[in-house]
Order: sequence, then structure tokens, then C-alpha cells
Amino acid sequence: MDLTSRFSGRNVLITGGLGFVGSNLAIRLVGEGANITLVDSLIPEYGGNLRSIAGIESQVRLNVSDVRDEYSFAHLVQGQDFLFNLAGQTSHIDSMADPYTDLAINARAQLSILEACRRHNREITIVFASTRQIYGRPLYLPVDEKHPIQPVDINGVNKAAGESFHHVYHDVYGIRSCSLRLTNTYGPRMRVKDARQTFLGVWIRSVLEGTPFEVWGGDQLRDFNFVDDVVDALLRAAVTPSCLGMALNLGDAEPMKLRDVAELLISVNGGGTYEIKDFPAERRAIEIGDYYTDFSKAREVLGWSPRVSFREGLERTLAFFRETLEHYTER
Amino acid sequence: MDLTSRFSGRNVLITGGLGFVGSNLAIRLVGEGANITLVDSLIPEYGGNLRSIAGIESQVRLNVSDVRDEYSFAHLVQGQDFLFNLAGQTSHIDSMADPYTDLAINARAQLSILEACRRHNREITIVFASTRQIYGRPLYLPVDEKHPIQPVDINGVNKAAGESFHHVYHDVYGIRSCSLRLTNTYGPRMRVKDARQTFLGVWIRSVLEGTPFEVWGGDQLRDFNFVDDVVDALLRAAVTPSCLGMALNLGDAEPMKLRDVAELLISVNGGGTYEIKDFPAERRAIEIGDYYTDFSKAREVLGWSPRVSFREGLERTLAFFRETLEHYTER
Repeated sequence: MDLTSRFSGRNVLITGGLGFVGSNLAIRLVGEGANITLVDSLIPEYGGNLRSIAGIESQVRLNVSDVRDEYSFAHLVQGQDFLFNLAGQTSHIDSMADPYTDLAINARAQLSILEACRRHNREITIVFASTRQIYGRPLYLPVDEKHPIQPVDINGVNKAAGESFHHVYHDVYGIRSCSLRLTNTYGPRMRVKDARQTFLGVWIRSVLEGTPFEVWGGDQLRDFNFVDDVVDALLRAAVTPSCLGMALNLGDAEPMKLRDVAELLISVNGGGTYEIKDFPAERRAIEIGDYYTDFSKAREVLGWSPRVSFREGLERTLAFFRETLEHYTER
Repeated sequence: MDLTSRFSGRNVLITGGLGFVGSNLAIRLVGEGANITLVDSLIPEYGGNLRSIAGIESQVRLNVSDVRDEYSFAHLVQGQDFLFNLAGQTSHIDSMADPYTDLAINARAQLSILEACRRHNREITIVFASTRQIYGRPLYLPVDEKHPIQPVDINGVNKAAGESFHHVYHDVYGIRSCSLRLTNTYGPRMRVKDARQTFLGVWIRSVLEGTPFEVWGGDQLRDFNFVDDVVDALLRAAVTPSCLGMALNLGDAEPMKLRDVAELLISVNGGGTYEIKDFPAERRAIEIGDYYTDFSKAREVLGWSPRVSFREGLERTLAFFRETLEHYTER
């Protein structure tokens, strides 16, 4: 798919634009010649980091605001061709401790972004970043899009609602939108400060800092996508009319046990240690067990499949953070 | 099931207690000897009507407050044995015109009620009134609980989230809760002022007032429950430990075309006229087509099935409103 011709000169808005996926998407879209506006709240507990757009600062417009700010979005969506709607509260644990904030960001703010589009820009195309978390504990594997939506935590409930709002606005108002359900995503610019995006961030930081990390359980199967592959899927979804109104899984065909992920990470890094631990109680209550994805619908509709192997992805991630770790660990 | 011994002397809180289902439940529970607190916002657009507790006013405690009022619920849930959580915004059309209010009532307020229970009364048993609306357009008939949750309007999205919050609080915190997914419910004390609860309310009012009513479409199949049967299901769910954590459909085994419902209503009333019309545009966008329920799980788990025939239920409903219509139509 020739994506360059589709984004060159087009106006693109990215929520969560200073976050992990958003910044990688922005860097790619700068290369495609798009006119990019990044929106980010820069709330420290979330994913935004100014460092993540180092090198492209002068080629993007940055608007610091919060997706909960309806007025800012009424303005920001105007004139945009594409909206990559990536901002979200991602921590499952935080969603249990403070369910209202999770609801405000992952559900209510999605409504107000969609209302802004309905009122001010009906021609926009939206790609929404959803999550495997909405499926809850898999009833079967691999999990396809027909799997029941049975979230096990507040974050999953609110993300499911946020995604459903996109479908309702598509079906009722004709707002062009597609939802991608992301699995564990990793790569340069990921959050390594804590486990709010994924446990893997903490693991990567630990091996680079030479400290042991903890593997909870260890036998659970999970699948992982390198961020460049996720960016590729987001771009494809934005220019594929047949995916509008759909929810599509992203994932990888080779799930691994967490214990083996730990071993691979240490092997790629050339060093590191970990301990197998029991789940902390607060985690055990919302743990989903084995999970991996059937992404055949994304392959069929978007022509997408992941290209970067886990080993190569980890190599590239470690190489990035060896140069930049201090910018991603400061408080 | 001997329900009387289970509620006599027990403390029961009912949200939406002046509403259609809530007031009928309250009347039944007064008969069972329960200590009843009714909570209702008395917002005119919603279901609350003081007239609906005529005759039992002195046997219930009424607390006028809104489910969005967190502080009131932190107090109200204390010391309660049962919570029948029935308050909701029920209008699909209103949810599209004002999605934020629908979200605040049907999703956020549910969270804050559950938080109040988690903090102040972990031993309470909650029965939540959910809705068939969360299924959206049926992919197959009759619709069982395994049917995908694919709501077609904002009300359906928010009700699905509100129900899921109950499941998360059950699974993670051990809050005893069960969800009943109601289909079209009718009977004495229903809302007949407008179609915010169900179109059938307007039809009933029209035949009593001798004015024609409109049937949109006419060939859609729907099922209906008389309110006494729904009250019976609510009570059974509250005292059936095996239903905790579950969502159960209510429904009826004999769905009817709307056109035939109109004919039956006119026959039972001994007069009335209707016109078949096309759907108004705003309705068509969120219309779900044929719907009827597989309620075999409720039969199995609760020992419940509807007992009141549609004809008998309509007779009793019309008899009630012949005496009281003025109290349900005033602005």
C-alpha cells in the first residue's frame, strides 16, 4: 500500500500525540509529508513526553490540552482530514483506584471528541486505539473480534464504551471511524518509568539499569507488537474505506510465555536478571491469564500483518533507550 | 419460592423508587413486610411520580436525591440488606440528543453507587435493572445472554457500561450483584406521558383518551413483560445466591408484531384507532428490528417465567389508568 501519497499535505490530528504510539506515528507522518497537530495533556502519570518528538519539533504543531476539554476539541477538529484518537488512561490498576478519572478520559472524553466531529467536521476520518483489555479473560484462544466483551476491570469497561461510542457515531451520524484493538505494544518511546502502559517497560528499564525485574506468574502466554507495525496498521486503517465502522484486532501469531519473554529480553540485552513472583493481590483480581490474538480480519481488511520479529523489536527498543533512558525515567 | 420470609424486616433501598418498576416493587415489598427506602430524583423527564406510592406513603421512607449525588449514596447504602438499582435514563432519543446526561446517570452514577457499597456496605446484595437495548440489532433470535453486546445508541452503550461495572465490582471486590436485562415492560404506573419508557405507554394513553396513535413500521416482533412478573424476577434474583455475578434476560415466549399488539390493545380496551407510519428519521437510525428474548437462563437459575398473559396484563393496565390517568398525564 502506497501510504505516502495518502498523507502528503493532509491535515492530521493525533490525540496522545506526545505519548508512545502517538509520537512514533507523528515521526512517521512527518516523513509522509503530513501537516500534523499533536494534542497531549502532558499529565505526568500518562504517556506524554516532549522528548519523544526530539528532531521533529519544528515540523509539528503542538497543542497542549486535555481530551476532557470539550472546548479545545471543538476548535482542534476543524479542518482536519484524519484524527488518530490515541489518548487514554492505560493503567488497569489506576482505573480501579480512581474509576472516575478513567471514565472521564476513556469514555466521556471520547463522546465529546465525537460530538466535536459531528458538529464541526463530519468529513473527518477517525482511527481509535482500542485495546484487547475489553475482552477480559479469554473464553477461547486465539481471541477474534467475535469474542464476548467481558472486561475484568474498570479500564476495560470504559475503553469498551469509548470504542462503542465511535461505532454509534459511525452508524447513526456517518462519522467515518474504525477501531483497532491493540495488544501489548512496545518499542522506542514507550513508557519505562512504571508499568502503567505495560510491564515490559519496567523490564526494559531494569535490564538497562542492571537491576533485577519481577515476572509475575510467568507461564501466561501473551502476544506483542512492535510499535512500527502498530503505526503501519493505524495508517492503513485511516485510508481503507472498507474498515469504517469495524473493530479490528492487532496481534502477533507467535505468542510467548512471559518467562520466555524475560529470557529473550536478557539474551538480546546481553545481560539481566529476574525473579518469578506470585501476583500481588490487586493484580491477581484483574489478571486475564493467557491471551493472544486472531488478527486475520486485520490481515484481510487492511492487508496488515506484523513484520518486525520480537527479537529485532527488542534490539531496536534497547538501542533507543541506551541513548535516551535518562529522558524517560526522570520524575 | 417463599419470598415473604426473605424480605420481612429486611432493609431495602430502591433507586428509581418512584418510577414505574420501582413503585410496583415497593408496593409488593410493603406487603412482604420490608423496611423500604425509596430514592428518586423526581426529575420531570424521568419516571418518578409521587402518585405511584399512593396508599403506601406512610409505610416507606422517601429520600429525594439523584443517583449522580455521590454523597447522598454514601449515606443511603449504609445498613441496607438489598439494593434494587433501578434508576436510569431510559429514553434512546434523549440519549442521542444529550449523551452526557445519559452517561452521567447510566454509567458514572452506577460507578459511584458501587463505590459507596464498596466503602460503606460490602454485605449488600444488589439487583441491577439492565436492558435488552445493550444487544443492539439481533444477530439471531431469540436473543440469549451470549449474544454480542453491540448497542446501536448511546443509551445502550452507557447501560452496558453500567452493567459491566456491577460485574467488575462483583468479581474484584466481592460485591454481591446480579443484573437483569429487561425487555419491554408495561403495567400500572408506567410512563404514559410520552414514549420515554416505551412506545406502549403512549398507545395506552391514546386509547383511553380516544385519540389515534401511530404504529411505526408494524411488522417488528417484540416481547413484553407485565410489571408484576418483572417484580417477581427482581425479588427472586435478590435471594438467589447462584445468580450473583450473572446477567439474566427477562422476556416472554410469545413475541408479537407491533401491528398485532395495537389490535390486541384496541380489542382489550373495546375501542381505539391507529395509523401505520414510517419511522421518523431519528428513530430509524437506532431502530433494532425484530427482537425477542431467550429467557431460559432466568428460568433455570431463578425458577422464573412470566405468568401474566399479554391480554390480562393489558386489562389490568387499562383498569389502573382508567382510574388514575390524570395523575400520569399532567405536566
